[in-house]
Amino acid sequence: MKEKLTTLCYIEKDDCYLMLHRVSKQNDVNKDKWIGVGGHFEKGESPEECLLREVKEETGLTLTAFRFRGIITFSTDTFETEYMCLYTADGYEGDMIPCDEGTLEWVKKDRLWDLNLWEGDRIFLKMLLEDAPFFSMKLHYMGERLSEVMINGRAEDAGKMLEASEK
Amino acid sequence: MKEKLTTLCYIEKDDCYLMLHRVSKQNDVNKDKWIGVGGHFEKGESPEECLLREVKEETGLTLTAFRFRGIITFSTDTFETEYMCLYTADGYEGDMIPCDEGTLEWVKKDRLWDLNLWEGDRIFLKMLLEDAPFFSMKLHYMGERLSEVMINGRAEDAGKMLEASEK
Repeated sequence: MKEKLTTLCYIEKDDCYLMLHRVSKQNDVNKDKWIGVGGHFEKGESPEECLLREVKEETGLTLTAFRFRGIITFSTDTFETEYMCLYTADGYEGDMIPCDEGTLEWVKKDRLWDLNLWEGDRIFLKMLLEDAPFFSMKLHYMGERLSEVMINGRAEDAGKMLEASEK
Repeated sequence: MKEKLTTLCYIEKDDCYLMLHRVSKQNDVNKDKWIGVGGHFEKGESPEECLLREVKEETGLTLTAFRFRGIITFSTDTFETEYMCLYTADGYEGDMIPCDEGTLEWVKKDRLWDLNLWEGDRIFLKMLLEDAPFFSMKLHYMGERLSEVMINGRAEDAGKMLEASEK
C-alpha cells in the first residue's frame, strides 16, 4: 500500500486565519471551497519540509513558528485515501504573493462558518479554535457529504458533530 | 507522490515495553533487531485502525488505551520514504499469542539500551520514556547508520542525540 500524503496549514494573524478561496483551477476537487494552504509531499520530505515549501510557494511567506495539530484521514468509496498533516502557524516572515490556486484572504475566526467549507473542515476547525490537543480524525465522505467521523479511533456521531460545529 | 505508511506501538506493562525480536523472516530489513509491534496500513485505514489490527494480528491483544506519540519520517538514499505513526499503549485485553514475525518479550524500560536497536529508535524511545509531547522526527539513514535527525522541523546533531540516548 502506498498512500497520498498532504499538509494543510492555517496561518494566524489578528484573530484571523489565512484562507484560500479555490477559484482558479478547473477540475479542482476543492473548486469554490475555502481551505487553508498546503499541498502534496514531495519525495523524501518530512511533514515540516512539505509544510514550509508549500506555504512558501502558495503565499510567499516563510513560517517561523508552527504547531502540528492533527492528522486527518480522508476516505471515500471512490478516491484513494488521503492522509493530511494539519498545522497552525503564528509566526512568519516575508511578503505575501498572489497564489495561483485561488484568492488568499484573512478571515476572522468567528466568520469562518459563513464560508463555503467542507463539512469535515468545520469539525476540525472547531477543534483547532478550541485548542484541542493533538488528534487523529478520520472523515469518510459519500460524495460531498460527510458520513462517518472517528476521533482518536472512536466513532462519533457525524450529524451531531456538524451541528455542534455550527455553534 | 504516494508513500509508505506504517504504525509502531510499544505496549506497556509493569515498567516494561513489549518488544519484538525479529528473528523469523529472511530478507527482513529489521532482521535480528528489536522493535515494537505494528505494520503497514491497509486500504482506507486510519492510523488507529491500522494500529488495532496490527497489534491484534501480531500479539493477540486488543488495545483499550493508547496514545499517538509522534510521526517518524524514515528516509534513505536508496529506499522509498516511510512515514511511521508511533504509539504507546497501556491498556489491553486478551491473551498473547506467538508472533510469526519474531519473538515477543517484555523488556524493562531501563534495559532497552542493551538490545540490538536501530540508532534512530534509541532517540525516539528516549523521548517516549521522557514523556515528550507529540513530535515529528525525521531520521535519514546511510545504510544502517543514522546521518541526520530533525525534530519538529529543526535539524539536530545526530551524534550528540545518540550519545544522549545512551545515558
